[in-house]
Amino acid sequence: MTFPSATSPILGIDLGGTKIAIACARLNGRVLAERRIPTRPEEGPEKNLERALDTAGRVLDQAGAAKVELAAVGVSIPGPWDHDAGTFLDLPNLPGWEGYPIRRRLEENFDVPVHMDNDANAAALAEWKFGAGQGCRDLIYLTMSTGIGGGLILDGRLYRGRNYNAGEVGHQVILPDGPLCGCGLPGHLEALCSGSGMARRLRDMVTGKNSIMWQMAGGDPEKLSAEILVEAVRRGDGLAGQFFQQTLDELSTGLANLVFILNPEMIILGTIVAKNPDLYLQPLDRLVRRKVWKIFTPDLRIVAARLTDRVGVFAPLALILDALDQEPEEVTE
Amino acid sequence: MTFPSATSPILGIDLGGTKIAIACARLNGRVLAERRIPTRPEEGPEKNLERALDTAGRVLDQAGAAKVELAAVGVSIPGPWDHDAGTFLDLPNLPGWEGYPIRRRLEENFDVPVHMDNDANAAALAEWKFGAGQGCRDLIYLTMSTGIGGGLILDGRLYRGRNYNAGEVGHQVILPDGPLCGCGLPGHLEALCSGSGMARRLRDMVTGKNSIMWQMAGGDPEKLSAEILVEAVRRGDGLAGQFFQQTLDELSTGLANLVFILNPEMIILGTIVAKNPDLYLQPLDRLVRRKVWKIFTPDLRIVAARLTDRVGVFAPLALILDALDQEPEEVTE
Repeated sequence: MTFPSATSPILGIDLGGTKIAIACARLNGRVLAERRIPTRPEEGPEKNLERALDTAGRVLDQAGAAKVELAAVGVSIPGPWDHDAGTFLDLPNLPGWEGYPIRRRLEENFDVPVHMDNDANAAALAEWKFGAGQGCRDLIYLTMSTGIGGGLILDGRLYRGRNYNAGEVGHQVILPDGPLCGCGLPGHLEALCSGSGMARRLRDMVTGKNSIMWQMAGGDPEKLSAEILVEAVRRGDGLAGQFFQQTLDELSTGLANLVFILNPEMIILGTIVAKNPDLYLQPLDRLVRRKVWKIFTPDLRIVAARLTDRVGVFAPLALILDALDQEPEEVTE
Repeated sequence: MTFPSATSPILGIDLGGTKIAIACARLNGRVLAERRIPTRPEEGPEKNLERALDTAGRVLDQAGAAKVELAAVGVSIPGPWDHDAGTFLDLPNLPGWEGYPIRRRLEENFDVPVHMDNDANAAALAEWKFGAGQGCRDLIYLTMSTGIGGGLILDGRLYRGRNYNAGEVGHQVILPDGPLCGCGLPGHLEALCSGSGMARRLRDMVTGKNSIMWQMAGGDPEKLSAEILVEAVRRGDGLAGQFFQQTLDELSTGLANLVFILNPEMIILGTIVAKNPDLYLQPLDRLVRRKVWKIFTPDLRIVAARLTDRVGVFAPLALILDALDQEPEEVTE
């Protein structure tokens, strides 16, 4: 390995519960080639890694980069990990993968430093370096999909916390007697406002005639989803509108808590919000400002994530840029 | 002013709602002399400052330090301030002091750099440099008196946030439909678990025969206080015990939220908790561990503040040490 320069190639691997995104870029942030393959959780980590390495080979070919030129590899994973060992902890979306030495396997394969973190931290870095958060010093990033994850950029750097697990903003309690979260604890923001949380609550609420959501789900409560909710809100469905307001209120409480605790300059909301900024952003902004003191709000901006579908490409690359203290030379998104 | 050395004298002023503590120390943290005078809020900032400067002169004399030798002045104030202007914002305990240019007045008087922050941030630095948090990288400090303030040491430095107001951990919502906080918003941790919050709730609860707290307050609901509650718990009063358990549960929810968000190594609890560690610490520790994931707890310690009554002496001094990147050479407490 030669000393990395701005044009050195780097490789990013975003391992998700449903797909693996692999991208080759230059250290200056310019993406050269990318591919996606499906994750097959049931096949276990080793077989999935073999397929990913296969695909990585093709991505490098396409980028015109040789494996020996690589300056670093970045890998983002869907949940908590053991920082010292570089292994997976218990990952909700990848049952049975616990303990797999992903970092060591990648280091052996590529013979370069491997920079690893969970997807929310990696996505926070990506939005900061490539997306909506460019130029901020203090920002909070929230993913809003199946779960609600988070990443904190504080004082101009990713804050990881004592055990590298900081930023689990979706697990603050919003309703002490509220529904159980996927993690087993009651009343968390994630249980109320995440995609899966909203879908679960809709199942108790939508009982046929009381909402068009029933037809939209084909009469199958299991098919109720955040997407159906949002569409029903747009079509003016009463129950959907009422429930959506309630989730906005709950989400705004969670954001207000974060404003009081961290006094950020920016809150970046991904996934559901990024797909429906017109429904979410203005009401949220109004509610949050009502729930915090004025001294927190002169510079506060609540915005949608900008990388959306390509966050998986930039997230692991951002881990490398961050570790090597490199700013992207061009804004790629 | 000569270039500051470890033995250069520094002056700390802790401006509180009821008293002003003034101390002279060396830059290595060794306290040479200290005095306290009462604050007289109704006399306004200028007169109080004059009395403080008078006392500062006597403290310097006592320390054998000349004003011209001072390397820096630190000042901690009881609430939010305008960082750019160095003025007070609206301070709940010092009504009408808003806009007073405290930093400029001190700079003019002493002709040295003045380092300023709110008391919770300053106390967090003090516990970190002189007290229970020595050697930690990630800690959360909570004052637990009239209000619940907080200070965050993250990645080995005080985190202040965009408008220098981060750490208001007492204003997270714990009970959405709970009592109003002193700040006017509903259900905050401070409204439930601070000294004034607990006293207010006791007034609705203690109605004569149902608790010894009635006698302890001399039959005057306005005299109910956190001190009376704690004493009644010790004497085995049923209502007191039940209510105290409830506040422990609510406080533990607030701490669990902070653990999920910030993954700290240590949580330091001041004031009420520091005076009653036997009643608070063990139950809180048990409750918090039940409310967070195991990956957060291997290193987590929930402890009492160590500086207690002398935090006002060390808080403004810690601001100076922090600004000058100086570690105390000896552990003074």
